Amino acid sequence: MGMEDFMTSGKSRLDQQLKFSAEIDKMTGILRRTLLVDHSRRENDAEHSWHIAVMAMLFEEYAKEPVNVSRVAEMCVVHDLVEIYAGDTFAYDVSGNQDKAEREAAAADKLFSQLPEEQGRRIRELWEEFDAMETADAKYAACMDRLQPFLHNTLTQGHTWVEGGTARAAVEKRMSLIKEFMPEVYGWISDNLDRAVENGWLKP
Amino acid sequence: MGMEDFMTSGKSRLDQQLKFSAEIDKMTGILRRTLLVDHSRRENDAEHSWHIAVMAMLFEEYAKEPVNVSRVAEMCVVHDLVEIYAGDTFAYDVSGNQDKAEREAAAADKLFSQLPEEQGRRIRELWEEFDAMETADAKYAACMDRLQPFLHNTLTQGHTWVEGGTARAAVEKRMSLIKEFMPEVYGWISDNLDRAVENGWLKP
Repeated sequence: MGMEDFMTSGKSRLDQQLKFSAEIDKMTGILRRTLLVDHSRRENDAEHSWHIAVMAMLFEEYAKEPVNVSRVAEMCVVHDLVEIYAGDTFAYDVSGNQDKAEREAAAADKLFSQLPEEQGRRIRELWEEFDAMETADAKYAACMDRLQPFLHNTLTQGHTWVEGGTARAAVEKRMSLIKEFMPEVYGWISDNLDRAVENGWLKP
Repeated sequence: MGMEDFMTSGKSRLDQQLKFSAEIDKMTGILRRTLLVDHSRRENDAEHSWHIAVMAMLFEEYAKEPVNVSRVAEMCVVHDLVEIYAGDTFAYDVSGNQDKAEREAAAADKLFSQLPEEQGRRIRELWEEFDAMETADAKYAACMDRLQPFLHNTLTQGHTWVEGGTARAAVEKRMSLIKEFMPEVYGWISDNLDRAVENGWLKP
């Protein structure tokens, strides 16, 4: 149900934009491994994307290089859109991450071609910049993309770590970007890694 | 469950920012009247806020005045935060809207005082600017805040309109901002209002 009820505006460009707006609502159905802070259920990509966009407005002062927070907020809200077709790949899923780039590039072709060409290109470029993690904005957005699920795990008895039988070294590796780019925040991460091992949430 | 598991960083400012990040996850539990496009359930405030932030990246060309899209994206992701404590007030709920401003101001005091002072003030100012609908950025954000649920209603057999026994005039009034600020988009709105009345989704 849904899109068959769409009434055309008679303008193909506006129709593309409206239909794309409806299509991306599918982000609400892409579930992540992370639990909500209240433990009630797994969070979805729409919630996660929103959450890290707000967090990007809070942690700028810890970034090692100057960042453009407004631009990062835009990057955050679109950084997972390709998962509508590629699905969420769990950060600690080794085999799933082997073909992730290929799956996501195909998903991006399918998704962004639904928009007027220059708009699709612009959002795709933001996503590609995020994914490459080379610019300061992308590094900062990627730090938020790691800090938020880490925070949730510390508040849900290490839920995804326990479920995945994850080792401390794997999380440490994923958090190395925060260690490098936001060292002051990493102090809190490191203390929580110790606690997670002590509590049996992470394998030593 | 949740916050009692928070491990202090030993730095009160960073703790405030991390705890606030966890607190706002409650947006995922604030349900709106609007159904998701796939009809599966009501959407929540986190999903809605994310959705209109992405939409703000698509409809700029129809705005009657120049807008700063990145800034609007930030405005969108924070525009409903006060509902964590004030709850969602349905747009067509007359009595609920009578004390909305008062309830939301109290909620804002409670919410933003959890952040370092200048950060709380900055986000509160963005929310107040949104709410006042005077600047071009605020008008554009408010148009997205109206267009998105309207789009959902057109794709879910007028779900919230039917449920509320809503009349066309009430929706027309709420959409008057789009009529004024994004006239080209309003053409599509107007056609859909006609269809909604024909289909019995809105009272004539």
